[in-house]
Amino acid sequence: MPTPLNIGLIGAGRIGRVHAANLQRRIPDARIILVADPIEEAARAAADDFGVKFAVAEYQTVLHSPAVDAVVICSATHTHAAITMEAAAAGKHIFCEKPLDFDLAVIDEVLAAVKQAGVKLQMGFNRRFDPTFARVRQAVLSGEIGAPHLLHIISRDPAPPPPAYVKVSGGMFLDMTIHDFDMARFLLGDEVTELYAAAGVLVDPAIGAQGDVDTALVTLKFAGGALGVIDNSRRAVYGYDQRIDLLGSAGGIRTENLHANTATVSTRDAVRRDLPLNFFMERYTESYVVEMQAFVDAVRNDTPVPATGEDARAATALALAARQSYTENRVIAL
Amino acid sequence: MPTPLNIGLIGAGRIGRVHAANLQRRIPDARIILVADPIEEAARAAADDFGVKFAVAEYQTVLHSPAVDAVVICSATHTHAAITMEAAAAGKHIFCEKPLDFDLAVIDEVLAAVKQAGVKLQMGFNRRFDPTFARVRQAVLSGEIGAPHLLHIISRDPAPPPPAYVKVSGGMFLDMTIHDFDMARFLLGDEVTELYAAAGVLVDPAIGAQGDVDTALVTLKFAGGALGVIDNSRRAVYGYDQRIDLLGSAGGIRTENLHANTATVSTRDAVRRDLPLNFFMERYTESYVVEMQAFVDAVRNDTPVPATGEDARAATALALAARQSYTENRVIAL
Amino acid sequence: MPTPLNIGLIGAGRIGRVHAANLQRRIPDARIILVADPIEEAARAAADDFGVKFAVAEYQTVLHSPAVDAVVICSATHTHAAITMEAAAAGKHIFCEKPLDFDLAVIDEVLAAVKQAGVKLQMGFNRRFDPTFARVRQAVLSGEIGAPHLLHIISRDPAPPPPAYVKVSGGMFLDMTIHDFDMARFLLGDEVTELYAAAGVLVDPAIGAQGDVDTALVTLKFAGGALGVIDNSRRAVYGYDQRIDLLGSAGGIRTENLHANTATVSTRDAVRRDLPLNFFMERYTESYVVEMQAFVDAVRNDTPVPATGEDARAATALALAARQSYTENRVIAL
Amino acid sequence: MPTPLNIGLIGAGRIGRVHAANLQRRIPDARIILVADPIEEAARAAADDFGVKFAVAEYQTVLHSPAVDAVVICSATHTHAAITMEAAAAGKHIFCEKPLDFDLAVIDEVLAAVKQAGVKLQMGFNRRFDPTFARVRQAVLSGEIGAPHLLHIISRDPAPPPPAYVKVSGGMFLDMTIHDFDMARFLLGDEVTELYAAAGVLVDPAIGAQGDVDTALVTLKFAGGALGVIDNSRRAVYGYDQRIDLLGSAGGIRTENLHANTATVSTRDAVRRDLPLNFFMERYTESYVVEMQAFVDAVRNDTPVPATGEDARAATALALAARQSYTENRVIAL
Repeated sequence: MPTPLNIGLIGAGRIGRVHAANLQRRIPDARIILVADPIEEAARAAADDFGVKFAVAEYQTVLHSPAVDAVVICSATHTHAAITMEAAAAGKHIFCEKPLDFDLAVIDEVLAAVKQAGVKLQMGFNRRFDPTFARVRQAVLSGEIGAPHLLHIISRDPAPPPPAYVKVSGGMFLDMTIHDFDMARFLLGDEVTELYAAAGVLVDPAIGAQGDVDTALVTLKFAGGALGVIDNSRRAVYGYDQRIDLLGSAGGIRTENLHANTATVSTRDAVRRDLPLNFFMERYTESYVVEMQAFVDAVRNDTPVPATGEDARAATALALAARQSYTENRVIAL
Repeated sequence: MPTPLNIGLIGAGRIGRVHAANLQRRIPDARIILVADPIEEAARAAADDFGVKFAVAEYQTVLHSPAVDAVVICSATHTHAAITMEAAAAGKHIFCEKPLDFDLAVIDEVLAAVKQAGVKLQMGFNRRFDPTFARVRQAVLSGEIGAPHLLHIISRDPAPPPPAYVKVSGGMFLDMTIHDFDMARFLLGDEVTELYAAAGVLVDPAIGAQGDVDTALVTLKFAGGALGVIDNSRRAVYGYDQRIDLLGSAGGIRTENLHANTATVSTRDAVRRDLPLNFFMERYTESYVVEMQAFVDAVRNDTPVPATGEDARAATALALAARQSYTENRVIAL
Repeated sequence: MPTPLNIGLIGAGRIGRVHAANLQRRIPDARIILVADPIEEAARAAADDFGVKFAVAEYQTVLHSPAVDAVVICSATHTHAAITMEAAAAGKHIFCEKPLDFDLAVIDEVLAAVKQAGVKLQMGFNRRFDPTFARVRQAVLSGEIGAPHLLHIISRDPAPPPPAYVKVSGGMFLDMTIHDFDMARFLLGDEVTELYAAAGVLVDPAIGAQGDVDTALVTLKFAGGALGVIDNSRRAVYGYDQRIDLLGSAGGIRTENLHANTATVSTRDAVRRDLPLNFFMERYTESYVVEMQAFVDAVRNDTPVPATGEDARAATALALAARQSYTENRVIAL
Repeated sequence: MPTPLNIGLIGAGRIGRVHAANLQRRIPDARIILVADPIEEAARAAADDFGVKFAVAEYQTVLHSPAVDAVVICSATHTHAAITMEAAAAGKHIFCEKPLDFDLAVIDEVLAAVKQAGVKLQMGFNRRFDPTFARVRQAVLSGEIGAPHLLHIISRDPAPPPPAYVKVSGGMFLDMTIHDFDMARFLLGDEVTELYAAAGVLVDPAIGAQGDVDTALVTLKFAGGALGVIDNSRRAVYGYDQRIDLLGSAGGIRTENLHANTATVSTRDAVRRDLPLNFFMERYTESYVVEMQAFVDAVRNDTPVPATGEDARAATALALAARQSYTENRVIAL
């Protein structure tokens, strides 16, 4: 086996630790050699837990380390753009968690810098790598269901985030629907040309008090003629609800939620099964491994990354348009 | 058992024969005593097949027969309004197939005449009586899923109608979506206040050539705050696709299509089952019996009918609004 | 349409009324012209309810009526053999409810009489005509799953019968398993050569007190090499449980229970659906229509009946062998 | 965190590497410090792949290493008994892959030695730790389905083993059914008192040529009165088929196979989904982690192991009885 790819991890919070575990344990041809986190104990803890020698507070140390081939950016959201630009300038390949930024002008600047530096940038749209959603994409690509006509993306959280988070999240469209905009573009391999966002506050008045919504239906028109709708709720009491229903000219494909077991119990009252997986990190466990392996492969083989900065820009543009559509209650052309 | 309700059947076509079979064979406390159809042989055939003595060509004979308590109007669509008004004037209770009319002013005139006459008018929104959809309604009424938040109505035909039919159908919104507008109002027990219709021609250019669409997503906002979407296609190649997905504050409810058998076959290639029922009269067999029994009960017990002329008006108003929304590509308030 | 087949109904109890309703309402080329029941009011009520002119107390009146082409025997079980023989002697075609008799010698005598008379005899093994079980048979016949290897028949009642019934039922193997023995032979188109019955009293000690069992697993070996097991319980608290699992050399086929609706409800506690149909007459509604149509067709077209007296004999022989196997706790060869 | 448990791995073949990966990557409080395999390169490769420093050819080196707290025995089947005895004598706690031995007298000798040494012995009945089967056990333990009445264990391999393997496997009952005997005892928490094995050669004549069978139904009677059946086939062409159906006095529980994705595709031909997982290591991935964690916990906390040597003896006794039952075609009491 050739030398593994040397990776510097920037940010040792929840998602940073997910990537660390996968890189160290499930991806043979890459390894983390350095962890950075402004909370140095967090960096140290992650380094210890995942068998990494070096831990530092300053992410610049990672960028300037000649041994580092690529960085995985899992820092606070508002730092993504700046660190990505610095990493590009330092000639490191970049895996960056979403979002890149909420401002399209900033994103454009970042993308230009990345292009200029000639490094790879993969965005953390992990759901593309979920085996079930990948199966839907395959059904479209292979022609199994013909040309796409009608798409439903159901994407509901089990419980609303705390008010403090809502405040800094950018609002539901930028925080939650953005995943589904990416999914819509990914599944159909097509661009959205118009959208209309109907939304409201049905789950938690505290969310409304902060000027945000918690329930939405976003209608999409695609360049190729297909129509789509994204269904978002901040609370499906039965668990994390992530499903696709796609009708094509030659057939349809639908997906189901994942459950921790396959048992069905029948009693005097009902036929029932245990609730679906409740937490995104359980639901999407596999997708995080596959996306990181894809990044490592793209860097090692110098092939295109499967989720680009341009994808991040497109999803952000759709999220901003949805916000505008909701605010002005009208159809928005992109 | 008391004397059965005496019914005159007006129109002995496909749907007229469905009601005739149910009234004669499955509803003990009603009986058809007279069949009218402008094609007298059709009236005669139906009378013979379902054990009715009298068959005539003129529906007026039915209206003027003192023995007739109620009429079931299954004549050509464009005659519904006029015959309903005449039947009301003749003091007969009325079951009328949908639509009442495509013109709201005409509908208002009919409703006024019915009110004036003091007779009952039940509209043939049979899907309300389907055991599966009725179960969804029950989940809302009982509080089992809490307050409605997000509704998907998937309603796809197995194959597009012939061009000649498209021409006289009033267009997809008035011909097909109208059922789903009624279903939306029925399931939530709430009124639509705004809608937006995205639509296109994806199935058959011949439909587009006649100025109609064959694929649509209609977003609904309800007075109570819930959001909904109706998904229509003129062609789901795998069969008649009629499903509901409803999220509420305390849970969700989803329904599946009906199949002729419950077998699943696993081979080297796939795990598969036979296609869902393909024809609306198979899919909704039971609903036709239950709706007619409900009409008979309402007349015999002098209780309100479960699908009124006002319901027909509301669904028509929504269909007309959808057409306008599509034409002008904007949100329409009702 | 040619003259319908004229049928005399003997026995106007629960199952007799099922057949009467189907013959009068759903089978166009046959009609009941005479109903007999020792309780003459029962005969009269059935005649009135199903539009039959004549009702009598003595079944002999039916047998001697020259207008009667065929008889449907739904009388008390212990009279089946004698009435069938008399009907054969009278030259009537015969549909007889199961069982023919519990004594193989008596059955042989009946079969000889029927053969001698040259009339048709169809036994009421209605489950063969259930669309789901018929689909399993089709999978075997068509080669879809290859040669049969392993068969599970799950056949569980929702609740045990009253003790008085248990007493006259002949015991679980002759009363309940007999249906499954017929199903096993029907599905595989093969004969059982050996069986072993494990059984016990787990549901209701009152059943054990009468010398009967309420729970059983009967292992079958077929002439063609396949193995099978019948699973019987007098009580599945969740409803009537009737399923097949069949593995073949080229695939497997499995069936599910029937439900009154297809809705699934997800709440904080569970994902659940309503219980399966609880009553055999609901579960097997369609099968009664199809079996009677098949009888009418066989008589009218002079073709073989699809469930013969020999089938009844074979199922009875297996039930008697199962009883012996259980009593002696050993494998029995047939 | 306290010092991790130091483990010596004996046997670096397929299953040894599964345990190595889990111990090194997913179980934080244990670590392999030494790998032994008679093929020294295999030991070396495993050590390198899973970050272990030492690799040796002689398992005795592991047993005599004072740093080793416990051994995981994944060596060739015929060595299990001897190495387990030596490990016990060396005072090491033992996790041993199944089977312990095919000879009950040998097993008894091993169990005596283990008892004498006062070490823990856990057997590798990994299926007990599968989340789905564990859910069935929980339904029994919690009383959710009441007292067990009727159990079906369906356990079918996707393809028969190579003839060379059949030769040394001990025959299907000792090689394959043994898992299901353990599952039956585990699920019901009860002992089998009688069994009857019906079996045959339906899949591959080459298996029959070696005196073995490839298809079986084994009927079980439990001490508590429940009845059960194990369904085994060496070939289910659609994949690895591992299911449970258990009826109890208060309800039933059934399980389904696992699939790599949850998508369902509907086309003109059928509604279908991709085949279930085909390979036992995919199907039971999680169970291997949970069982090893359970072993580590039992050693660290000095609590009973959840799958004992006595369990191994009981499953072997049942497998030997099944072989005898098949050979003599009669019921065997245990």
